Amino acid sequence: MASDYSSTLDDLNPKVLKCAYAIRGEIVTHAQILQQDLTENPGSHPFNEILYCNIGNPHSLGQKPITFFREVLALCDHPLLLDRSETKALFSADSIERAIQILDQIPCRATGAYSHSQGIKGLRDKIASGIEARDGFPADPNDIFLTDGASPAVHMMMQLLIGSENDGILCPIPQYPLYSASITLHGGTHISYYLDEETGWALEISELENQLKTARSRGVNVKALVVINPGNPTGRVLAEANQREIVEFCRKEGLVLLADEVYQENVYAPDKQFYSFKKISRSMGFGEKDISLVSFHSASKGYYGECGKRGGYMEFTGFSPEIREQIYKLASVNLCSNISGQILASLIMSPPKVGDESYESFSAEKDAILSSLARRAKILEDAFNSLEGVTCYKAEGALYSFPRINLPDKAIKAAEEAKTAPDAFYAWRLLNATGIVVVSGSGFGQRAGTWHFRCTILPQEEKIPAIVSRFTQFHKQFMDEFRG
Amino acid sequence: MASDYSSTLDDLNPKVLKCAYAIRGEIVTHAQILQQDLTENPGSHPFNEILYCNIGNPHSLGQKPITFFREVLALCDHPLLLDRSETKALFSADSIERAIQILDQIPCRATGAYSHSQGIKGLRDKIASGIEARDGFPADPNDIFLTDGASPAVHMMMQLLIGSENDGILCPIPQYPLYSASITLHGGTHISYYLDEETGWALEISELENQLKTARSRGVNVKALVVINPGNPTGRVLAEANQREIVEFCRKEGLVLLADEVYQENVYAPDKQFYSFKKISRSMGFGEKDISLVSFHSASKGYYGECGKRGGYMEFTGFSPEIREQIYKLASVNLCSNISGQILASLIMSPPKVGDESYESFSAEKDAILSSLARRAKILEDAFNSLEGVTCYKAEGALYSFPRINLPDKAIKAAEEAKTAPDAFYAWRLLNATGIVVVSGSGFGQRAGTWHFRCTILPQEEKIPAIVSRFTQFHKQFMDEFRG
Repeated sequence: MASDYSSTLDDLNPKVLKCAYAIRGEIVTHAQILQQDLTENPGSHPFNEILYCNIGNPHSLGQKPITFFREVLALCDHPLLLDRSETKALFSADSIERAIQILDQIPCRATGAYSHSQGIKGLRDKIASGIEARDGFPADPNDIFLTDGASPAVHMMMQLLIGSENDGILCPIPQYPLYSASITLHGGTHISYYLDEETGWALEISELENQLKTARSRGVNVKALVVINPGNPTGRVLAEANQREIVEFCRKEGLVLLADEVYQENVYAPDKQFYSFKKISRSMGFGEKDISLVSFHSASKGYYGECGKRGGYMEFTGFSPEIREQIYKLASVNLCSNISGQILASLIMSPPKVGDESYESFSAEKDAILSSLARRAKILEDAFNSLEGVTCYKAEGALYSFPRINLPDKAIKAAEEAKTAPDAFYAWRLLNATGIVVVSGSGFGQRAGTWHFRCTILPQEEKIPAIVSRFTQFHKQFMDEFRG
Repeated sequence: MASDYSSTLDDLNPKVLKCAYAIRGEIVTHAQILQQDLTENPGSHPFNEILYCNIGNPHSLGQKPITFFREVLALCDHPLLLDRSETKALFSADSIERAIQILDQIPCRATGAYSHSQGIKGLRDKIASGIEARDGFPADPNDIFLTDGASPAVHMMMQLLIGSENDGILCPIPQYPLYSASITLHGGTHISYYLDEETGWALEISELENQLKTARSRGVNVKALVVINPGNPTGRVLAEANQREIVEFCRKEGLVLLADEVYQENVYAPDKQFYSFKKISRSMGFGEKDISLVSFHSASKGYYGECGKRGGYMEFTGFSPEIREQIYKLASVNLCSNISGQILASLIMSPPKVGDESYESFSAEKDAILSSLARRAKILEDAFNSLEGVTCYKAEGALYSFPRINLPDKAIKAAEEAKTAPDAFYAWRLLNATGIVVVSGSGFGQRAGTWHFRCTILPQEEKIPAIVSRFTQFHKQFMDEFRG
């Protein structure tokens, strides 16, 4: 007789047991309980709402969807609307035109059919054109794999590359924990490289070289380098010269460059700009034969923030046709990604253009969201920097602040007694006192002896002053309680 | 320096290289090339369209979506429509009401936000009620995990259960190759049990017992039994008494019962009925402590056939809270399944009821699809049985015929020379002669020395006579060429 799964944890896959993913970990479960509490017993806590700053989930905090995108999605969901005269009054002319264009690319106009395993060809054409327009270099629709958000694409790459624990992937610390979780689940070795907090979370090539050398000397077969740009959780936007060094490093060392570029539309620093690693490598003269490069993108971030649609893609370049067949096979086993997500992924890469009926309202919606995010990033940065013992680098991009807290010894000791990491201890106290949910730095990795938390910049602007004041008050009380 | 991925297959995960998935294998790639050919050079082949009978993808062959479901989806995609008076003319009253109900269960009405990792609570409530109404036994919304179709749910279970190649999963032969692919990808051992073709693909408990005993004697830790009911590719609907034996077998042997119940609405045999394994086990008096049972369901099949929406769920019962935490963690790493798919999964479990404005048109659409499928299954069964050397059991349910072909020795020899399996050889010849795409039995597994193919019953009814005649003509020519 096998295990009794109704009573034991034994006999499960040890890699699953080992895997950790803090973004939706225990603190979030606790927050959900508090929220239930608040509904059932209003006034039972010193706050009246839970503020989920743990996850980059803009619409959950009130950000509105881009109207044009939703118009197109609704028409593609219910194409019979296109036969009705009332539709012209309800939808913009260009959303109707775009929906027809998309439907005409699908056999039988069937948005309810499985598509090609890589995604609908016409949508991949649009995405490839969008990449070309962005980068100024050609992109091939056959290199595009549409996926349910970026996460399954990352898993596919880890599954392809990792055959045993001897296979290593270089990952930043701090990092978005999808990477460590995926490496653990696929049984590989996570090789950490540290971003340099003192210089605003810079990525130093010497650090990459050292970690690679050490790993190789231990016999690890290092296969790929993960770079997140703009950075999550750091908010750092890489400088072009730095990106060139990274490309050169991967080319020289024969590493696959796994580029998480999901925040490419979220750049707030006026002196910074997003460049894709594909553009950088092509502008250095490197082609398909020189570097294997995968770029992940998602409809969940940017100004659109459509997390629930699970739309995304990867651009997969510099691999042999035989390897492409293998990744195609992996995509085929899951049949295809969801068609609404596929449509949305194509829309974010081909939004309304000057002259389209929706262009002005679209631009107004987009600019309002991005400029508000930039203001919120700055307000939170200033607020965190004004707290005792807290330093916070500028969020140049992405959706997060990642402040460092110098915790008093007494707090560290109290955390030890509570059997939790000091920054997790701080985050729990914050939640219980204010209803604000953040994720402690230990969920992302950090240099030993340093403590951080990640807080999204997503609460609606009008709520930020109250949040800052609640946070400030909590922090003061916390420090008063634990200061030496 | 690591591998040069631009030129070699070495150094990839060997489990990926080993994995096979025939449903979208080489023959489909070849069909796509032929289709391209037909577009560019009409008349270049002895047929003028490709008929994809390789995959259960109803809308791709012209099946129309259920109007009510699409109305609700469009309204949830673009909730601003609910504020407009024109909407009442375009949508049924109950679709508007249902959309409002659904939106009210989502914080900020944000269908663009990540949901709870298991899916939106209100939708899980609806699904649990639907299961209760179907089975007559309680269902708990906390046991429901919404997923992007059934495939990711199957992968999650394999990932949870398989820790090494010593872990085995009992799977039917023939089987839907998702199971073998997933077991291979997760590095486990596939223990085949054979369905008995002579008795219409019956599942014999003695066969399960033998295979389990043999596997255990080889030291394999057998963890679960996969049962597909209604059967894919066999079309067999299990009898209630047989299901009771299966439940008793799993309970006695401590095996997790992984029940693929995605064809639960597709039953055509008047003397057969679908019973969920949950209903069977509860009616035998077995509860959470007695049997670990996972039921997979999908919005891709049934009368709805919404493959492209990637909606589905698993009901996960009889596991300890610690194990549930592990599967919750796996769900969390991928954040959540797509919200349109979640909504659709709830709709298929709570369709319009008597008295709702849409009820009559909904019922008419549903009945037309199911009764036409039943007719098509019968016509194809008769047609296949009329071919020389072909026997085909009745498709009591699901979406497929799975005829057996007794191939002449000369054909088997020709296949050998072409370095392909004899039934794959037959399928290729069929495609090249008629444009009809079927999957050979070797893609599903079959007893050594027997040959089959799987053909969906999905081509539109008015096309079936022409298909039957093309098929019959091809078969006659094939037999004439190879008959001894």
